[in-house]
Amino acid sequence: MRKPKIVILGAGYGGLMTAVSLQKLVGQNEADIVLVNKNDYHYETTWLHEASAGTLHHDRVRYEIRDVIDRNKVEFVQDTAVQVNKEEKKVILEKSEINYDYLVIALGGESETFGIKGLKEYAFGISNVNSSRQLREHIEYQFATYNMEEDKKDERLSIVVGGAGFTGIEFLGELTNRVPELCHEYDVDFHKVKIICVEAAPTVLPGFDPELVNYAVSQLERKGVEFLIGTAIKECTPEGIFVAKGEDEPREIKAGTVVWAAGVRGNSIIEKSGFEAMRGRVKVEKDLRVPGFDNLFIIGDSSLFINEEINRPYPPTAQIAMQQGQTCAKNIAALIRNKTDLDQFKPDIKGTVCSLGEDDAIGVVYGKKLTGAKAAFMKKVVDNRSLFMIGGVPLVLKKGKFNIF
Amino acid sequence: MRKPKIVILGAGYGGLMTAVSLQKLVGQNEADIVLVNKNDYHYETTWLHEASAGTLHHDRVRYEIRDVIDRNKVEFVQDTAVQVNKEEKKVILEKSEINYDYLVIALGGESETFGIKGLKEYAFGISNVNSSRQLREHIEYQFATYNMEEDKKDERLSIVVGGAGFTGIEFLGELTNRVPELCHEYDVDFHKVKIICVEAAPTVLPGFDPELVNYAVSQLERKGVEFLIGTAIKECTPEGIFVAKGEDEPREIKAGTVVWAAGVRGNSIIEKSGFEAMRGRVKVEKDLRVPGFDNLFIIGDSSLFINEEINRPYPPTAQIAMQQGQTCAKNIAALIRNKTDLDQFKPDIKGTVCSLGEDDAIGVVYGKKLTGAKAAFMKKVVDNRSLFMIGGVPLVLKKGKFNIF
Repeated sequence: MRKPKIVILGAGYGGLMTAVSLQKLVGQNEADIVLVNKNDYHYETTWLHEASAGTLHHDRVRYEIRDVIDRNKVEFVQDTAVQVNKEEKKVILEKSEINYDYLVIALGGESETFGIKGLKEYAFGISNVNSSRQLREHIEYQFATYNMEEDKKDERLSIVVGGAGFTGIEFLGELTNRVPELCHEYDVDFHKVKIICVEAAPTVLPGFDPELVNYAVSQLERKGVEFLIGTAIKECTPEGIFVAKGEDEPREIKAGTVVWAAGVRGNSIIEKSGFEAMRGRVKVEKDLRVPGFDNLFIIGDSSLFINEEINRPYPPTAQIAMQQGQTCAKNIAALIRNKTDLDQFKPDIKGTVCSLGEDDAIGVVYGKKLTGAKAAFMKKVVDNRSLFMIGGVPLVLKKGKFNIF
Repeated sequence: MRKPKIVILGAGYGGLMTAVSLQKLVGQNEADIVLVNKNDYHYETTWLHEASAGTLHHDRVRYEIRDVIDRNKVEFVQDTAVQVNKEEKKVILEKSEINYDYLVIALGGESETFGIKGLKEYAFGISNVNSSRQLREHIEYQFATYNMEEDKKDERLSIVVGGAGFTGIEFLGELTNRVPELCHEYDVDFHKVKIICVEAAPTVLPGFDPELVNYAVSQLERKGVEFLIGTAIKECTPEGIFVAKGEDEPREIKAGTVVWAAGVRGNSIIEKSGFEAMRGRVKVEKDLRVPGFDNLFIIGDSSLFINEEINRPYPPTAQIAMQQGQTCAKNIAALIRNKTDLDQFKPDIKGTVCSLGEDDAIGVVYGKKLTGAKAAFMKKVVDNRSLFMIGGVPLVLKKGKFNIF
C-alpha cells in the first residue's frame, strides 16, 4: 500500500507547528511528510521589529529548520512555492514540482500597500530577515552619512513609521531605545533626530484597551515620537512622504527613512492558484479545510477564520497560526487513519502583549491589564513560549530571551 | 611683559606631537599655547583602513584630545580653520578669529582626485572617521540589500579600490578579511563578491622592495583580489567606473562600491592663504619654517621637505609628521627664549610596514625585510609607538593593539 504524502508549504509559525505536531502524531510508516520552505531557517516574525531597529541581532531571531524537525519523519525541501494546482494535487515550486495527497498552505502574509503611490519602491518593510536587516543598515547609513555632508541635511535623521498598529508601535519602542545609541555611534546630536508615526485610523492600536493605549502613546512621546493620527500617507517619494488629514491639501514630510508597518494581506499565491479569497485570505471551514477540498488546509495569515462572538475574522497572529497548526496536524492524522470526525478549531487567546522596547510594554494577560516592567516580562514569556511550542526546552535554551531582570 | 602666543592648527600626528612636546619644553609663564582642531578627538589616520573595512571599531581609532594635553599649559579650541592671514598674524576660524605670535600649520592633507570625473561625487574615501564609517556602512548596506532584490544584482557586491599605494593595499588586506564575515552576516555566497584594485602606475606599492610587493600581491590575490595594474580610472559613475589601459577604449566595471585610496595633496587652506605651494604643499626651510616668515611653521602633509640623497620630497607619513612636530616644538621653545640657533629637521626612518590584514604584512624594519606574522607583529609595534610618542604608556594601555598573536 502506498503511503499518503503530506506536503506543508511554509515553515513559519503555522507550517512549522504543523510539521512538528505531525512528526509526533504520525508513525514513520503511516505517511510521507514533506516540509517546503524558501529558506533553510524559520524566523520569529513577531521579533522582527527588534532586528529592524538593530536592538537584537537577526541571528537571534531565526533558527535552522533542521534543528527542530525529526528528519526520519519529515523531509525538508528548500524551494519557493509558485502555484498550487489543486485539481491535479500538485504544487509548482521554483526548482521542481511536488505531488500531494494532503496539502497545508501556511505561506504567511504579505505587505498590503493599499495602492499608495511609491510605497513599494521607497518604503522599507519589517516582513522578513532580509528586509529587517536592510532597514537596520539603511538607518545606520543615514546616521553615518549625516556628518559627511557639508550642508547638514537634518531630514536624513527623520524616520517616518507608517502605521500605529502592533508592528508600528513595537518598532517605535525599539527605535526610541536604539536612537541614542546611534547618536553616540555617529556623533550626532540627539535633538536633530525626528521620529514620526503616521496612522490613518482615528486611534493608535485599534481594538486595544484605551487606558493601555494612552500609556503607550505617552511613553513613546516621552521618548521623542510625534504621532500624526487620523492622517493618511498619500504618497511616498525618495525624499519622504506626503500626508493629509481628511480632505486637507497633502503636505510633505521629508525623511531619510520611511517604514511601512501597516497592512497585512494573504499570500499572493492564493489568488494565483484560483482560490476564492479576500485580500489573499481564504475563509476556511471550522476544521481548517478549504470548502470543497477534503485534503487541503489553509492556516495562518492566508486563512480567514470568523470569531462568531463578534462576527469578524480573528486577526492574523502568531498565537492563532500555531494553534491552527496543532489542529491541522491532528486532523490530517485523523484523515490518514480514515477517521471522519475532525477537530473544530477554537482559538484560545491567552492574552496580548505589545512591547514598547526591552523594558516596557502594555498587555492584557488572562484578562488582567499590565504595563511597564511586568508587561515587558510577560512579553518575554510569550516570546519564549513560541520557541517552546515548536522546539521544546532545547530551543528555548538556545534562542530564548533571558535578560528578564 | 606679554607672553608670546603659540597657535597650533590641527591635532593630527604633527600638530598633537607639537602640542605635547611644547607642554613639556615650555613653562606655564613662558607662553600661551592654543591648539585648534575641528573635532574634540584625534584619530589615527594610519588605522582608518581598518575602521573603513569594519575590522576595527572607529572608537578604537580615536581618542579625546583633552586626554593627552596638559590643560594647565595648552588651551584647546574646537573650531575649524578657514584661512591664515600671515601679514596680520591672525587665523580666521569658522566661529571666531585668533591672533598669534607663532603659528604651526599642521592641518593634514586632502584627497587628490586629479580631476577624474565623478570621483568626488560617487567614490568613498578613507580620510577621516566620518568618511570611514560611512564607507563601512555603505558596504554593509550593499550586502544587506542583495537578498532583497528579486533580480539579484551581483555588481552590488563588487568593490573597486582605486589605488595600489599604501592606503589601497592596507584597505584590501582588511577588506579580504572582512568579506567572509559579511557573507555570513547577510547570507551571501562568497563567490558572488568581487574585489578589484585599479592602479594607474605600472606597479603595486611603488618604491617598495619588489620581492615584498610580489608577496603582498600573491597574498591578496589568493584572498580574492583582482589587480588591474597600469590601468587608469577614467570616470566614476553611480554604477561603477570606466577604466582604460594606455590608449585603449575605456570599458565599464560595474560596482556597488568605489573607494578612492590614491592621491594625497596638501590642505586647500594653504592656497587660500596665499602660500606658494605645489598641490597644497609648501617647501619649508630645514628648520620647518616657511621661507620669509620667522614665526610660521608648516609640518605634516602640507609641508614639502626634500630628501637630499635622492633630491625628491619625503612622502607624507605619520612617522615624519610626528618627528617634525618634535623639531618644531624645540624650535619654537628656542625662539621664545630669543635663541637663533634652530634645529634642522632630519627624518629618522626606522622602517616601513604595510599591513595585509590583522595577521599578515610586509615591511622593512632597520633594513631587514619581513613578511607574514613577524611583519604583522612589527606593524602593531609601529601603531603602539605612535600612541606612546603622544600619550605615553597610559594611552598605549587605553588604545593600543595587544592582539599580538
